Amino acid sequence: MFDDVFKFVQQRKPLIHAITNTVTINDCANIILACGASPTMAEAVEEVEEIVDLADALVLNIGNLNRELVEAMRKAGKRANQRGIPIVLDPVGAGASRFRMETVKCLLEEIRCSVIRGNVSEMKALAFGGATRGVDALQEDAVTEERLPEFIQFTQELSRRTGAVISMSGAIDIVADGEKAYVLKNGVEMMSRVTGTGCMLSALTGAYCGACLEQVLSAATAAVGVMGLSGELAGQKVRERGEGTGSFRVYLLDAVSQMNGQQLQGGIRIESY
Amino acid sequence: MFDDVFKFVQQRKPLIHAITNTVTINDCANIILACGASPTMAEAVEEVEEIVDLADALVLNIGNLNRELVEAMRKAGKRANQRGIPIVLDPVGAGASRFRMETVKCLLEEIRCSVIRGNVSEMKALAFGGATRGVDALQEDAVTEERLPEFIQFTQELSRRTGAVISMSGAIDIVADGEKAYVLKNGVEMMSRVTGTGCMLSALTGAYCGACLEQVLSAATAAVGVMGLSGELAGQKVRERGEGTGSFRVYLLDAVSQMNGQQLQGGIRIESY
Amino acid sequence: MFDDVFKFVQQRKPLIHAITNTVTINDCANIILACGASPTMAEAVEEVEEIVDLADALVLNIGNLNRELVEAMRKAGKRANQRGIPIVLDPVGAGASRFRMETVKCLLEEIRCSVIRGNVSEMKALAFGGATRGVDALQEDAVTEERLPEFIQFTQELSRRTGAVISMSGAIDIVADGEKAYVLKNGVEMMSRVTGTGCMLSALTGAYCGACLEQVLSAATAAVGVMGLSGELAGQKVRERGEGTGSFRVYLLDAVSQMNGQQLQGGIRIESY
Repeated sequence: MFDDVFKFVQQRKPLIHAITNTVTINDCANIILACGASPTMAEAVEEVEEIVDLADALVLNIGNLNRELVEAMRKAGKRANQRGIPIVLDPVGAGASRFRMETVKCLLEEIRCSVIRGNVSEMKALAFGGATRGVDALQEDAVTEERLPEFIQFTQELSRRTGAVISMSGAIDIVADGEKAYVLKNGVEMMSRVTGTGCMLSALTGAYCGACLEQVLSAATAAVGVMGLSGELAGQKVRERGEGTGSFRVYLLDAVSQMNGQQLQGGIRIESY
Repeated sequence: MFDDVFKFVQQRKPLIHAITNTVTINDCANIILACGASPTMAEAVEEVEEIVDLADALVLNIGNLNRELVEAMRKAGKRANQRGIPIVLDPVGAGASRFRMETVKCLLEEIRCSVIRGNVSEMKALAFGGATRGVDALQEDAVTEERLPEFIQFTQELSRRTGAVISMSGAIDIVADGEKAYVLKNGVEMMSRVTGTGCMLSALTGAYCGACLEQVLSAATAAVGVMGLSGELAGQKVRERGEGTGSFRVYLLDAVSQMNGQQLQGGIRIESY
Repeated sequence: MFDDVFKFVQQRKPLIHAITNTVTINDCANIILACGASPTMAEAVEEVEEIVDLADALVLNIGNLNRELVEAMRKAGKRANQRGIPIVLDPVGAGASRFRMETVKCLLEEIRCSVIRGNVSEMKALAFGGATRGVDALQEDAVTEERLPEFIQFTQELSRRTGAVISMSGAIDIVADGEKAYVLKNGVEMMSRVTGTGCMLSALTGAYCGACLEQVLSAATAAVGVMGLSGELAGQKVRERGEGTGSFRVYLLDAVSQMNGQQLQGGIRIESY
């Protein structure tokens, strides 16, 4: 199922334009490179349209906003829509402030996104408004086996409303469009103890979508699988060696840079609905 | 003495709002996560007050300023004071420019800080004005055994003047309020050969203070001990393996993420005055 | 040839003021520290001149611009020229947008640079205007053995026009002034799979130039050699251990922090023209 994704990234080496936050901007550039794509992080309003013209996908991440950055995102997003390249939106901490909620609403009104990638709290904020706790998903929002049908329905409805593939991260991940949903159960707890795993997943999603324009759902699902499986491989190494979160970060990037279709197929725990 | 700190961080998982510099913002988020707390780095004037409303502590770091960031710090600081959550101020390179001196003065006038964490040069700049060399402490300012009484007195007076616990870093660290002073002798030279160890210590101090509102002096002291001891553990690993500063950074974060009360108690070199 | 560079960095511990991009600002600070120098990354227009007054060299990197940053670069550059300290300019992605081209032109008109450090596309953009693909050199611009004389001539002419040493990176690196050219053949492919190796090289060039004011060509050449050789050492370690790009980044910094004149002399592949 995912061989195409790896093949196309290698062949096309897509250029991914990410307008993202200063906290994890380096991690995002590095994961784009690790997977075989090429990053450009330009964010000046004066130049974002020209940079979009060179790019194969656009990633918008609202993790650390200011007014100019919002303006740059709007301009870049409109141009990306005109050019028909995929846009991945990461509504980091969407419910945490009015400024973020308004930014997300404005972006969703003006721009057609191909994928929205976030955690459960953020997706709920998008759907209903509401509070999130920083960038971490609220405990009560945990996607459990029993509540899985309810959350699948939620993502599919959100997908129909927004026209975007919804990639919702949690202990159990769901990637869905209006027709189909994938449920993924990879990943380890330590991923929540290094910053930027969410942002990196959005960047990786952008890289895969930039390489596979016609298969956005598969591309977004592959990204979730690669990230989760890479987390498992990194976690295993850290446990074996008795190391901590610093080494985990390094091994996570190692694993993404070494991943291929066969390894993903062997390790991914996925169900389709 | 420090068991409470570790226990409370684990139990309360405090949310730490850091308004900090772009150089080490990723390191600061990662150390907050490593110690078991949760970071949020929002810095837009439009949202900082709402973010402070969710937070358990605020960290202000002036390492790479601009006017908007100063405005955000003022707003966030005032709100944090209203809410009664602790504020940690890191006056990075305070004496290096008028802009920094004025910013620090303005913040100290308008905001009550719980802890001020910096090196000797920065503390002297706060106390007397004066020049610092970038972010590194001047050699002549070195805290030595002979001059220890003089420096303890200095920090205690500065604490009385500012109303904040003073956490002053150097070859010998001093953490003091107006009544009591702790002298710590952990750490290794290589800590000064990676960027952000000071910023990370301030972030860690914020995390511990956010978990232990009633024991700010202990929390600030624990942070200094954890950082210094983690530096020693990382340094030992690097020496054994013949590695350099890149690996040191990784092991430093590893050590912080694995530290507990017992390990700290066994390794900390501390005297109280 | 390069013993002086290492000796002077150790002796003088130069302070390097870098105004650079948010993507790799942490990497730049860390490589400056790794080589034995000291970084300061101030970028507020209010303070850059005072910071330049403390510095031994200035690095200007246009990788992620905004109007204020351009203003800060102009101010800092003029002051650095007044003080006679070396300036290293990294015209990241110069041809990718009008904003970048205009910024580079403006900086080159107003400021005398000691070194311009970039890839082939960026140097061509400087010389002729023209498009670059993000920050990566275009394939057609590859410096090959057959086209070496042509590219040496190109860098020397650009050096004469700009008055700066030209440090042009690629599969084969060329460092030249109007009189002399060095061709270097160190480095590994994986360096293009982590972000910031170009930015880090510019920062390292700044550090060496800050220590060796009178030998800018040697200093810039040493930086290219150290970076390429460090890449080889890191690449070898990664291959032996079956690791990926995350570990490569760590080992690269390790190698730079451990490099000395003897090791460089033993590993550098250099020809002079």
